[in-house]
Amino acid sequence: MQCVNVELKERRYPIYIGEHLLTDSSVYPLKSGDKVMIVTNETIAPLYLETVANTLKRIGCQVDHVLLKDGEKYKTLDSLNQIFTALLQQNHGRDTTLIALGGGVIGDVAGYAAASYQRGIKFIQIPTTLLSQVDSSVGGKTAVNHELGKNMIGAFYQPITVIIDTTTLNTLPKREVNAGLAEVIKYGAILDYPFFEWLERHIDNLVALNQQDLQYCIARCCQIKADVVAHDETEKGERALLNLGHTFGHAIETHLGYGNWLHGEAVAAGSMMAAALSEKLGDLTHTDVARLEKLFARANLPTFSPDGMQPEDYLPHMMRDKKVLAGKLRLVLLKTLGQAYVTTDSDPTLVLEAIRACTQAD
Amino acid sequence: MQCVNVELKERRYPIYIGEHLLTDSSVYPLKSGDKVMIVTNETIAPLYLETVANTLKRIGCQVDHVLLKDGEKYKTLDSLNQIFTALLQQNHGRDTTLIALGGGVIGDVAGYAAASYQRGIKFIQIPTTLLSQVDSSVGGKTAVNHELGKNMIGAFYQPITVIIDTTTLNTLPKREVNAGLAEVIKYGAILDYPFFEWLERHIDNLVALNQQDLQYCIARCCQIKADVVAHDETEKGERALLNLGHTFGHAIETHLGYGNWLHGEAVAAGSMMAAALSEKLGDLTHTDVARLEKLFARANLPTFSPDGMQPEDYLPHMMRDKKVLAGKLRLVLLKTLGQAYVTTDSDPTLVLEAIRACTQAD
Ligand SMILES: NC(=O)c1ccc[n+]([C@@H]2O[C@H](COP(=O)([O-])OP(=O)(O)OC[C@H]3O[C@@H](n4cnc5c(N)ncnc54)[C@H](O)[C@@H]3O)[C@@H](O)[C@H]2O)c1
Ligand SMILES: NC(=O)c1ccc[n+]([C@@H]2O[C@H](COP(=O)([O-])OP(=O)(O)OC[C@H]3O[C@@H](n4cnc5c(N)ncnc54)[C@H](O)[C@@H]3O)[C@@H](O)[C@H]2O)c1
Ligand SMILES: [Zn+2]
Ligand SMILES: [Zn+2]
Repeated sequence: MQCVNVELKERRYPIYIGEHLLTDSSVYPLKSGDKVMIVTNETIAPLYLETVANTLKRIGCQVDHVLLKDGEKYKTLDSLNQIFTALLQQNHGRDTTLIALGGGVIGDVAGYAAASYQRGIKFIQIPTTLLSQVDSSVGGKTAVNHELGKNMIGAFYQPITVIIDTTTLNTLPKREVNAGLAEVIKYGAILDYPFFEWLERHIDNLVALNQQDLQYCIARCCQIKADVVAHDETEKGERALLNLGHTFGHAIETHLGYGNWLHGEAVAAGSMMAAALSEKLGDLTHTDVARLEKLFARANLPTFSPDGMQPEDYLPHMMRDKKVLAGKLRLVLLKTLGQAYVTTDSDPTLVLEAIRACTQAD
Repeated sequence: MQCVNVELKERRYPIYIGEHLLTDSSVYPLKSGDKVMIVTNETIAPLYLETVANTLKRIGCQVDHVLLKDGEKYKTLDSLNQIFTALLQQNHGRDTTLIALGGGVIGDVAGYAAASYQRGIKFIQIPTTLLSQVDSSVGGKTAVNHELGKNMIGAFYQPITVIIDTTTLNTLPKREVNAGLAEVIKYGAILDYPFFEWLERHIDNLVALNQQDLQYCIARCCQIKADVVAHDETEKGERALLNLGHTFGHAIETHLGYGNWLHGEAVAAGSMMAAALSEKLGDLTHTDVARLEKLFARANLPTFSPDGMQPEDYLPHMMRDKKVLAGKLRLVLLKTLGQAYVTTDSDPTLVLEAIRACTQAD
């Protein structure tokens, strides 16, 4: 088992990473008599709900659960209210603990519910997708969507503990695993060249879900994100680097309609566009770009613009991104592999050329 | 104009109290070009919306507004969502400011919306009821109701400024003014004997809305609450004193159904029950109790249990109050006028006798 500590101004909390942690009662910060409410969904419940509930019962907790529908489209105020109803019906007070068991959707909704129920109750994350293990469970961002915009409603709210059982990835659809690897590769590319090299040596093991390598990899990513968040809780500076590939990716997701490409897939293709632009600016070498492309490809991720999407389709979407400040496109680019920076004065012609470089002729 | 500063761990903010502040552009912490969204309701809009909007336009702000339905029953997630929809439809970003123009209901919903929209935007309170001016606008508690419980969903979120224009009370129904005076009298009784004496000399002026006295009185109450909150942001110790009369009052409100007696009316009668119990315990003198009763009566507030409600009706409701900890009734009682304390071991027989002392024979 590995442990990464997240250091915040007010307090610190641990992220435990290991095999079979769902059944390891020592990692749960709970004691006999505690009330808990597990929030999960219809897909995850048959796989892991009983396992977690039994561990908690062994500790002596009173365990209730609430099942949300599966999917990004249920990341809403209605699902939030469903959680509140369950809490109130089962008489959960201010001293209860909410547990999110699932991917980023469950983590985001449950986290916001924990922030809001009686103005804040204790919260534990048990992320079960690779994306949520390396990204959404770290940093304290919680949210639900509004008809008119994604993640528009939420809170900054930190869990008391994050429990990552890497064996849960065995049941995750391969395409979701690969999408998570896009964010993993991103961490190496923006901030950690040695980790990038490690990934070049171990990416096949990760795709094959080698437990040892997964543990090391997830711990490394959590550490990187925890460091960034600790330096920049308010999201003004360093935290922006985490958005490599995301502005281009956002354009892909919006153009195709959410859910056609997974977020990680759009991030992979988008990162290649950022890399192409960085090459045109004379920062990355052709070899660097090829190494990045190879790594994404070995994780079965797209490195080109989706079929039928034209280079001209990108900019209008990109300009409407939340990350646009005062009408200025804000892009994360690479100085070298392992070192990213933010720029607000990229030449639109070069941006278009970079997208074109990642577009395959029909 | 008076100014009270609320000192918090992270920052301080001012509460301005005076006549005609709605039109005084100097008290608004806004500048030309700022976007603002005013949240108000159908009753208050015809009275004050244009006045506030015009002041903001003079500053050079871009002003939008959203109208909620009037009433406690619209203090819901649906109203919250109505605010989010308005913000998104008018393209309000993270740098916008939300303004609550209204009583405690508007302040609570708008405050929670400000806490949640894009995980937190700037928030200004313009409370227009006496209750919201002396109580709900200070302390940072925001909330909406759930079908199964009042104020169950919310956040601690502080405004950047509170603007109290005492002339807005001229249009407030007298019964609402008096209900606000119940909380005013409560402050004197629990923490400030000199203020209690001041109230004995000035209560008729307050009922008559004398502007000078209102200003002094509101500033005094805001100062008392701000001090309590600063010492006890997390609501464990001193803040509990603010609940004098509230546990009895809660039983009255629940028994009658919310809205039959105003909250302040229930607090007045409830405070008399706490005073009666304090007399039985040998702390308050009969004269003290009579002075408190006289003060409430001069503010046209009830000092007896509602007609038809039996002493036996109280305890079941009281035990279901949020303030009950681990099955223990937690009551605020008076040592003397101006000095309250919290107790968790009150004799149920004495409690019943105290309620009976405040029950009129049919
Ligand atoms: N809070 C943050 O900082 C942050 C960061 C990135 C993304 N996010 C959010 O995360 C969400 C995406 O998260 P996600 O990629 O985890 O998607 P997800 O939560 O929708 O999970 C993907 C799918 O896998 C299923 N699943 C989860 N675990 C499983 C398992 N172990 N076995 C089998 N199936 C399993 C889920 O039911 C779902 O169908 C988005 O809503 C995004 O906005 C949040
Ligand atoms: N956040 C806190 O710390 C806190 C503390 C106490 C109470 N509260 C909440 O406050 C709410 C009660 O607040 P309230 O008593 O102000 O009730 P309210 O907001 O419902 O206002 C009472 C009535 O007066 C009307 N009104 C408001 N200002 C007016 C004016 N100047 N002229 C004419 N009409 C006017 C309103 O439209 C409403 O009909 C409750 O929901 C309660 O839970 C919150
Ligand atoms: Zn991402
Ligand atoms: Zn009150």
